[in-house]
Amino acid sequence: MSKVPYKIYLEEDEMPKAYQNLRAYMSEKPEPMLNPATLKPVTKEDMQAVFCDACIDQEFNVTDKFIEIPQPVFDFYKMYRPSPLVRAYNLEKLLDTPAEIYYKFEGTNTSGSHKLNSAVPQVYYAKQQGLTKLTTETGAGQWGTALSMASGFFGIDSTVYMVKVSSQQKPHRKAVMETYGTNVIPSPSETTEVGRAINEKYPGTGGSLGCAISEAVEVAVNTPNCRYVLGSVLDHVLLHQSIIGLESKIALDKYGITPDVVIGCVGGGSNFGGLISPFMAERLEGKNNIEFIAVEPASCPTLTRGKYAYDFGDIGKVTPLMKMYTLGSGFMPSPNHAGGLRYHGMNSTISKLYHDGYIKAVSYEQTKVFEAAKEFARVEGYLPAPESSHAIRAAIDEALKCRETGEKKKILFGLTGTGYFDLAGYQKFNSGELGDYIPTDEELETGFATLPQV
Amino acid sequence: MSKVPYKIYLEEDEMPKAYQNLRAYMSEKPEPMLNPATLKPVTKEDMQAVFCDACIDQEFNVTDKFIEIPQPVFDFYKMYRPSPLVRAYNLEKLLDTPAEIYYKFEGTNTSGSHKLNSAVPQVYYAKQQGLTKLTTETGAGQWGTALSMASGFFGIDSTVYMVKVSSQQKPHRKAVMETYGTNVIPSPSETTEVGRAINEKYPGTGGSLGCAISEAVEVAVNTPNCRYVLGSVLDHVLLHQSIIGLESKIALDKYGITPDVVIGCVGGGSNFGGLISPFMAERLEGKNNIEFIAVEPASCPTLTRGKYAYDFGDIGKVTPLMKMYTLGSGFMPSPNHAGGLRYHGMNSTISKLYHDGYIKAVSYEQTKVFEAAKEFARVEGYLPAPESSHAIRAAIDEALKCRETGEKKKILFGLTGTGYFDLAGYQKFNSGELGDYIPTDEELETGFATLPQV
Repeated sequence: MSKVPYKIYLEEDEMPKAYQNLRAYMSEKPEPMLNPATLKPVTKEDMQAVFCDACIDQEFNVTDKFIEIPQPVFDFYKMYRPSPLVRAYNLEKLLDTPAEIYYKFEGTNTSGSHKLNSAVPQVYYAKQQGLTKLTTETGAGQWGTALSMASGFFGIDSTVYMVKVSSQQKPHRKAVMETYGTNVIPSPSETTEVGRAINEKYPGTGGSLGCAISEAVEVAVNTPNCRYVLGSVLDHVLLHQSIIGLESKIALDKYGITPDVVIGCVGGGSNFGGLISPFMAERLEGKNNIEFIAVEPASCPTLTRGKYAYDFGDIGKVTPLMKMYTLGSGFMPSPNHAGGLRYHGMNSTISKLYHDGYIKAVSYEQTKVFEAAKEFARVEGYLPAPESSHAIRAAIDEALKCRETGEKKKILFGLTGTGYFDLAGYQKFNSGELGDYIPTDEELETGFATLPQV
Repeated sequence: MSKVPYKIYLEEDEMPKAYQNLRAYMSEKPEPMLNPATLKPVTKEDMQAVFCDACIDQEFNVTDKFIEIPQPVFDFYKMYRPSPLVRAYNLEKLLDTPAEIYYKFEGTNTSGSHKLNSAVPQVYYAKQQGLTKLTTETGAGQWGTALSMASGFFGIDSTVYMVKVSSQQKPHRKAVMETYGTNVIPSPSETTEVGRAINEKYPGTGGSLGCAISEAVEVAVNTPNCRYVLGSVLDHVLLHQSIIGLESKIALDKYGITPDVVIGCVGGGSNFGGLISPFMAERLEGKNNIEFIAVEPASCPTLTRGKYAYDFGDIGKVTPLMKMYTLGSGFMPSPNHAGGLRYHGMNSTISKLYHDGYIKAVSYEQTKVFEAAKEFARVEGYLPAPESSHAIRAAIDEALKCRETGEKKKILFGLTGTGYFDLAGYQKFNSGELGDYIPTDEELETGFATLPQV
């Protein structure tokens, strides 16, 4: 076996031709979504006013192990994929560890993250269905940018409700989306009932992700040939993100490498679910004994301190109920938190696998995360997104444990994106202004109190 | 021959092991630099207070065709190189052209451009020489970021004088450099004589690149074990940038492709010089008849409307005199110009080759450039730097000519970087506020009047 290069790139004909559906490998499936009005399982029809049909079919598909990637989607992927699988030789050297560290880097596209992997098929399916318009929300901007790139390419109108304070703080993110032809509306806006109501109730408000979601959904259901698209949490998004794990596994297999540990950061769960997919599938088939570690911020400790319960996906309580780990849809992480991953809940498949003991979870305070990010940037070159840096932190700690024990573990982690548009956190960290924040048990109870009685 | 993939990546063992020195292929060499005090050729000793020894040796080397890349530099390159050579299938389709369009994309590293290719060896050579500190200037920030990445990696102190108005408008660029450990000082500062003098003369000034250069050089020559590094214009920088062309040629050779046209944008000339290197070397040996096109902004038309004369490299007239195409060191391009490439002069090798008829030059107004950038971004995904977009504009126009004539030309252009930190131009273009600016003959005469009498 030849020495592993710094970066393993697949050839175009080695790229995966189908998404992998992790739920098809689970003997116990995640609980179904419930209609909050009836408490009965949601039907496909219930969702058709909001989401496009193909995505709904995928959301309900728990049996097909593989779902073909449409050729036009594959052709788009070829522009920015395969993403590199990197052997972190320099980080290993810095840490003086016997462990081997690998990372899959999803930040080489203009959206700056893995989000584009799901935006492309979602827009393609919408176009195929004859839809002419899509709406979504964005906070930090990665998902909005990903949607704008995909909708610009396939030629479909898109409107992104961007949290107002973000659109003011990040005019350049807005400029990128507009360059791709997207209509960016600061939220709350005067274009929707919910937006007008919130502006009236809270004059001058900077908005929130919950509000932006509500505006985007309102427009989607009230506009002909329009649907809403979502960048995480749901299972069809995880399906699309399986491309991350599939490429990683093919690259590692070329060099005869099976990881001992697979690490990813978790917000809604889409990158982690995608990264672990082929490895977890084999684990569920009894073919490996890989350790899977989900990394979350201590300030929003969904898996490590949340409850496994039915809850709404949004603060406005307009979504179906999902069985998941949650802090309660009313939980608000500290505004001091700079590291992303601020979602109260978690994808239901990840939640189920965690509940059943297949996944471990750890949480980190943000200063520890930024320390890791800065070390990583200096020796590996890439400036990581604060979100991705949670995974870096955990990977470094695993490698340091190996230094103590002498174990030659093979560690794979997901580097979901770059921090180029999210440097406020780095600025604060560099100047020593970044603090940590861990919610008290009382604060968590306040969030749990918002859980529905199911 | 198999079908060309969207992206050609070299294997690690296919990467070039030596830089190519284009001047060694020229039967007529560029004119030597002159000491402005004596008007005699500059000696190596003249330069040793400012630049590190290895770079000076390279600057004076016009005979060795190849100069080995040191192993630690090669190891750093492996982290972000090879850069992809992309077949622009989607752009070809959009343009409905029989031409084949290829581009070499240098924007996948965190500095966002090709500048890192020269920062790495410059920092390495400085470290080898036992130097402990480096200074430079930066305007838009790409070069400063590249230096900060390299100096962070090799562990050498670096100070970047950043044009004050840029450091205020781009606090995030500053944050990136600081994250890599660089000391960023807004210029003019109180840390140098020249800075204090300018602050006193022009209270509240936002600074200029010329002033920042003067500060960086002053500190370099007055600090023990410190030197100044430069990101373009000089021949050792072009030498390092030959990695761009060498990789491109190896990738194209794998598929039996020889370009008919090679296109690059020109500011100081480093990316263009690097891109054309192996192709021009063969042209000078009579082995091909490739057309080389340098693309510049109409607002700073160095090659298309400048004079071939000895001139200073900076507005402060502290550099040696260089024989080059120049608009005069006192020429100031319109501040309305958003597209970079604002340098009054041009690398002397590029100037000589242009003077001798080996290179064509064209200029474009910036709105035409941004139009091309936006089209490119939509179908090829990457959001290009305004500078790089000059090459895109010219490549598109070549391809459109082929649509008229039916010629199946193979067009190669350099995509030097991304526009992620330089979105103000896109914002203005999107909102219709971006105008064009072409200097009048009278304005050019004002610049020419600043030329020294040599």
